[in-house]
Amino acid sequence: MSKFIVETSARHVHVTEADLITLFGEGATLTRKKDLSQPGQFACEERVTIIGPKKELAGVSILGPTRPSTQVELSASDARAIGVNAPIRESGDVSGSGACQIVGPCGVVELSEGVIVAKRHIHLTPEDAEELNVKDKEVVWVKIETADRTAILGDVVCRVHPNFARAMHIDTDESNAVSAGRDQMGEIVKL
Amino acid sequence: MSKFIVETSARHVHVTEADLITLFGEGATLTRKKDLSQPGQFACEERVTIIGPKKELAGVSILGPTRPSTQVELSASDARAIGVNAPIRESGDVSGSGACQIVGPCGVVELSEGVIVAKRHIHLTPEDAEELNVKDKEVVWVKIETADRTAILGDVVCRVHPNFARAMHIDTDESNAVSAGRDQMGEIVKL
Repeated sequence: MSKFIVETSARHVHVTEADLITLFGEGATLTRKKDLSQPGQFACEERVTIIGPKKELAGVSILGPTRPSTQVELSASDARAIGVNAPIRESGDVSGSGACQIVGPCGVVELSEGVIVAKRHIHLTPEDAEELNVKDKEVVWVKIETADRTAILGDVVCRVHPNFARAMHIDTDESNAVSAGRDQMGEIVKL
Repeated sequence: MSKFIVETSARHVHVTEADLITLFGEGATLTRKKDLSQPGQFACEERVTIIGPKKELAGVSILGPTRPSTQVELSASDARAIGVNAPIRESGDVSGSGACQIVGPCGVVELSEGVIVAKRHIHLTPEDAEELNVKDKEVVWVKIETADRTAILGDVVCRVHPNFARAMHIDTDESNAVSAGRDQMGEIVKL
């Protein structure tokens, strides 16, 4: 079985311990609401408002656990709507990326960089990678078949790690562009 | 040269003469703001608000001239945001499509159907169709090459008419999913 699930990542924020305290107050911790497909990752009860020069986005989820740098992942539609110039980047690659304000109930974080549009990618274990015949960082084509908007997405980065679970992640623009359904599957194709 | 320009259609509305009067008052006519690529089609100065069960979209453009039926074309992101269930359809195929309110300065149109997400398509003259070796209504794959989000879109309908100008139309979700630039080109590929 060479397929994998295609999951849609809605806009979300990763925060550092320090920014968590700024946003939610001294002693604040992230409250697990729902586990995500990647082991150890979870959606939190805590939500923030992302403010750009043109508009704001309220009720944006935080994903835990905390990280070494604060990062805001938006769709390009979102970024454009709020007036932030967000490059397409892999998670963690935030140097020179977009700026915004993050507002929580106890304070404001002025983010000088950290707003990105996530580069589409597949999380794979080493066993999955071997089965699919791909390597870490390899860029592949993925066919996503749907009733009305089948597409083959290029520029998909394979990310291989023993702690990953097999799943492709696309953002809401990409999800809507292929009209991805629940339990949407994809497969690597050679062109 | 087998390529064609790929244009992004932002959310917009087509109106009937009757609905134009309801929205903008007795004697109202559409005011041409900018010609579009398709001959005779133009963006208008007149704007309306689209109201769904969850939210509204203000300042939505009307495209002229008036048409036999009123139609609201949203991205799936838009439709979801305002809470309207809009199917993916070709322009004009509005039977059983989404409902919304359209609000203008002089009145409100209760649209029981007419909200769609446009099916991606290519406008071609008969000469273009011959050159590209496609027929009217044929469904093709189109490769769109960009720096970060190259994709091959399936389910693209060819529409052939002497009054058309050669251009592919995608919506804002699709445009963001491929990171389409200005003067973005596409080409039909056989898979």
